Amino acid sequence: MQDHSPSLLANGPDQSAAPSLIELLRAQISSSSELSFLMEAHDGLSAAIAERAGFNGLWASGLSIACSLGYRDANEASWSHLVEVVERIVDSSQLPVLVDGDGGFGNFNNARLLARKLLQRGAAGVALEDNCFPKINSFVGDRHPLADIDEFSGRLRAVKDTVADDLVLVARIEALIAGFEMDEALLCAHVYADAGADAILIHSRRSTADEMLSFARAWQNRLPLVIVPTKYYRTPISVYREARISTVIWANHSMRAAIAAMRQVCRRIIAEENTASVEPNIPSLDEVFELLKYDELPRAEALYLRPRR
Amino acid sequence: MQDHSPSLLANGPDQSAAPSLIELLRAQISSSSELSFLMEAHDGLSAAIAERAGFNGLWASGLSIACSLGYRDANEASWSHLVEVVERIVDSSQLPVLVDGDGGFGNFNNARLLARKLLQRGAAGVALEDNCFPKINSFVGDRHPLADIDEFSGRLRAVKDTVADDLVLVARIEALIAGFEMDEALLCAHVYADAGADAILIHSRRSTADEMLSFARAWQNRLPLVIVPTKYYRTPISVYREARISTVIWANHSMRAAIAAMRQVCRRIIAEENTASVEPNIPSLDEVFELLKYDELPRAEALYLRPRR
Amino acid sequence: MQDHSPSLLANGPDQSAAPSLIELLRAQISSSSELSFLMEAHDGLSAAIAERAGFNGLWASGLSIACSLGYRDANEASWSHLVEVVERIVDSSQLPVLVDGDGGFGNFNNARLLARKLLQRGAAGVALEDNCFPKINSFVGDRHPLADIDEFSGRLRAVKDTVADDLVLVARIEALIAGFEMDEALLCAHVYADAGADAILIHSRRSTADEMLSFARAWQNRLPLVIVPTKYYRTPISVYREARISTVIWANHSMRAAIAAMRQVCRRIIAEENTASVEPNIPSLDEVFELLKYDELPRAEALYLRPRR
Amino acid sequence: MQDHSPSLLANGPDQSAAPSLIELLRAQISSSSELSFLMEAHDGLSAAIAERAGFNGLWASGLSIACSLGYRDANEASWSHLVEVVERIVDSSQLPVLVDGDGGFGNFNNARLLARKLLQRGAAGVALEDNCFPKINSFVGDRHPLADIDEFSGRLRAVKDTVADDLVLVARIEALIAGFEMDEALLCAHVYADAGADAILIHSRRSTADEMLSFARAWQNRLPLVIVPTKYYRTPISVYREARISTVIWANHSMRAAIAAMRQVCRRIIAEENTASVEPNIPSLDEVFELLKYDELPRAEALYLRPRR
Repeated sequence: MQDHSPSLLANGPDQSAAPSLIELLRAQISSSSELSFLMEAHDGLSAAIAERAGFNGLWASGLSIACSLGYRDANEASWSHLVEVVERIVDSSQLPVLVDGDGGFGNFNNARLLARKLLQRGAAGVALEDNCFPKINSFVGDRHPLADIDEFSGRLRAVKDTVADDLVLVARIEALIAGFEMDEALLCAHVYADAGADAILIHSRRSTADEMLSFARAWQNRLPLVIVPTKYYRTPISVYREARISTVIWANHSMRAAIAAMRQVCRRIIAEENTASVEPNIPSLDEVFELLKYDELPRAEALYLRPRR
Repeated sequence: MQDHSPSLLANGPDQSAAPSLIELLRAQISSSSELSFLMEAHDGLSAAIAERAGFNGLWASGLSIACSLGYRDANEASWSHLVEVVERIVDSSQLPVLVDGDGGFGNFNNARLLARKLLQRGAAGVALEDNCFPKINSFVGDRHPLADIDEFSGRLRAVKDTVADDLVLVARIEALIAGFEMDEALLCAHVYADAGADAILIHSRRSTADEMLSFARAWQNRLPLVIVPTKYYRTPISVYREARISTVIWANHSMRAAIAAMRQVCRRIIAEENTASVEPNIPSLDEVFELLKYDELPRAEALYLRPRR
Repeated sequence: MQDHSPSLLANGPDQSAAPSLIELLRAQISSSSELSFLMEAHDGLSAAIAERAGFNGLWASGLSIACSLGYRDANEASWSHLVEVVERIVDSSQLPVLVDGDGGFGNFNNARLLARKLLQRGAAGVALEDNCFPKINSFVGDRHPLADIDEFSGRLRAVKDTVADDLVLVARIEALIAGFEMDEALLCAHVYADAGADAILIHSRRSTADEMLSFARAWQNRLPLVIVPTKYYRTPISVYREARISTVIWANHSMRAAIAAMRQVCRRIIAEENTASVEPNIPSLDEVFELLKYDELPRAEALYLRPRR
Repeated sequence: MQDHSPSLLANGPDQSAAPSLIELLRAQISSSSELSFLMEAHDGLSAAIAERAGFNGLWASGLSIACSLGYRDANEASWSHLVEVVERIVDSSQLPVLVDGDGGFGNFNNARLLARKLLQRGAAGVALEDNCFPKINSFVGDRHPLADIDEFSGRLRAVKDTVADDLVLVARIEALIAGFEMDEALLCAHVYADAGADAILIHSRRSTADEMLSFARAWQNRLPLVIVPTKYYRTPISVYREARISTVIWANHSMRAAIAAMRQVCRRIIAEENTASVEPNIPSLDEVFELLKYDELPRAEALYLRPRR
């Protein structure tokens, strides 16, 4: 009997026949013919919702996780806090999870330790960005010191040597965010590819896709490209398909939608001193129970609490 | 210089003059003249939002926290998981937090240990319910074995002896949920009052407030009454004021609102393969940063990273 | 390059060819021709020491782990505390680890959740005992209520259905500890074997092995037998070999030896106000560094911090 | 009734009259007339032992804690791992605990966050050292890049502004370890004193106390001096008294003694395939139970499990 509740009891032991989560993520990211999408998750609940809605992969967003914890996206949460949240995300869906590993939380030694722990908790991939510890979110402020290109390559090599192909390794380039020229970004990408990255995440904070597209043209798909169109969201998806982008990350939209909804429900309850007008717009408890597979419990109780002899 | 960011750096050390969080919660719960409200929180983010919206106290809901973690509300999350989430909730606001401590996660020894740890993390109160370990959510299924009344009283006494008045102790009565008569519920309430409870939470799953109001009439305010109108939400608030209810807990509405919003945003992004139509309805990243006080960081950098000599 | 430091970086990804830790433990426990030994560990350090000394398997002792944490062996530490310590033990050696899972920390649902998490952290097996939650250590006090035999069998079946053969499942029988007759202990063993246990741990607090040996004779090796000769330590090992015991657990001796040594060193330093006389009897820091493979760090730094281009 | 078991139930709520742990540590460190001693602890057990032996304060050693966890002293354990271990140490004794906070695990923001969390868990003080993240143990290797003196002062100021006088702040100077001259070490000390440090820890890896004594002479007790005579252990204690050292830290001796004992017991059990010869040299389980106050449990059961009505 295999149990498919969330709450850790997902992903049964007999998955050997089916492609593993790592294989699934690798296929999604490697494919240049089909654009794939990763949806942000920041806890078990958001992961279960994204899966139910039909997404095929998750992005364990550093920003969203920090927000959820009440921390700022400046390496306030520890690497082990991140690992614990990733565990909840992995356990709450059957989807492959690409983890936002920031810069690896220190040097090559911290980075490979993080990768090993993410592998253990069932993550399918990790994205490392070429900045220094502690980081500050890419969309905050202007001066973001980049890591030395060789030192960061060493982090990638250390991770690769530690987890081999058991974890998809994405190198995230912050050069454009930090105000460097396109040439520098391309140089980084090539060096990181040499160091063993499986894909390149090119980050841009422009409100149009131009910068990212220039990079893509010059890059010529040496490795698959992953993008995060948080700021240039007006770009039609066909543009990414034409540019043969591999993967689009919707990086923080569940968290932001949750904020909007929680803010509204709080204000309304305060104003009305009641929840009657709120009820029709939120799921009933039974829907919540259905989402998190409470129905498996009485079935299991019948199986395991009832005498057999 | 006192720092008022969330992220642990809230609640500065010089609060001795102001009333403590415990005193605030005690005042809210004790007052029979003014009805007070506690808003559910399940992580740091929901706590920050509830505070910003104007609530004066928080309910760290066991159900919502379990959902957020991807666990079911059946004591799947450990007591230390609960303590960690409570820590995030407390650190993310300046509000007093009443914690849903289930039955105390075992016997009197587990219960007092939980209370000690909640006190350490800055909780202002704990509600313990008279059920057995492991529990199942009050709104799931029908047969909920209650704890022996004396054994549960022992849990309350053990907690009281451990934390004295440093934590508001609420005894939650599940008798009506479990199908017992009103007399049994009242008997429990009196015994728990004798055992040292500071307030009584009378729980009901009826869709009208009748049951709860019968209890309130018979109870005659020996101790303040706390209610959770999740099911009888159509009752106007004036009814609670007339019945001299002390405190109303809005027990899971932020979590449910977040589900609705995340579900909708996921479906829309899948359908549209884009976030353009979503953007106007969710807060910008700058709003997110403002909520979580990112602006304190550059100010602090100016203070602590700039040479002084 | 494979890294073999402790600190998570042990157990590289290319172990597919070698027998897995689960296979190793299964072989040790299944063999009726060769007696195997498991040495107690309670943290990463004790695990590394036991491995270095030559043991082939570890026992993550509930009692010792509780002591190390400063908790009492009465389910004061949460199940997730246990999982975290097991992770440290597994990461600090290359040995298979059999985990003392108490009664599973609740009902069948808690037990299977614990098993799933232990599997994830790399444990090779779990022993579950037929008592109630919260437990008290078998050597403390006299009245230890046993679990209902069918209810406990349900826990075993739930674990088996969840982890299949990916975790060695040992059923620990407390009947003799609790003062029941031999017949009851044997009945339990047969029921637990039917429920899917891979081995039986028969526990006894007598100062001789008679009770355990009577059980072994009557049991006739239907399943392998595991014993814990904490109290009947005077029995020569040949007796166990003759009785075709499968596995002996030295259940708490590293912890107790550590207590003796720490007590002595503390007293001496207090008495002498100096450590000079202590130094010759304790390992140098260099020995400590060697044990925990600090030498791997500069080698890795040479590999990953030095520019490659 | 106040409960004095370890296991979190120590330190009852009615301590307001007695001096707080912070006051005790401050008095010990401030006194120039009486030399005080802090004994290393790395988990709850070692803390309980040191208290029982008669020490008046504890040093939560980064090296020993890392060893215990199976990590290397190179910031492999996260800051939250450290906080969790400190919590166990604090809960397991009634002694003030000075925490080895390394460099604060990042910049000023990480340092103040760490300090806030240590305060919350009941630590009495924190020592911060002027190195970079990630660190490597002071006794390993030779090139240890120091932090910029102003940047590190900013960390101290940030911590001071966050915890005020609720935590004793010790600034640890690594200049001599890193090969700098005495003048540099003194300069650092003065700058850190200006930044708000309550005491200076001058670290030296020489096998004689000369270097440390030179520093002490030149320093002229502007602030109390804390020393760690791990390497110059042959120096008689009278020398420190003459030099008006405030506090001596015995930094890792319980951990090293535990290693010696566990190594020996493991080897012996392997050689003898028995524990009979080991038993006389290690405490009985009853002694273990006594140390960790198991006797409080039946007393509490009598109080809280027995019917009152």
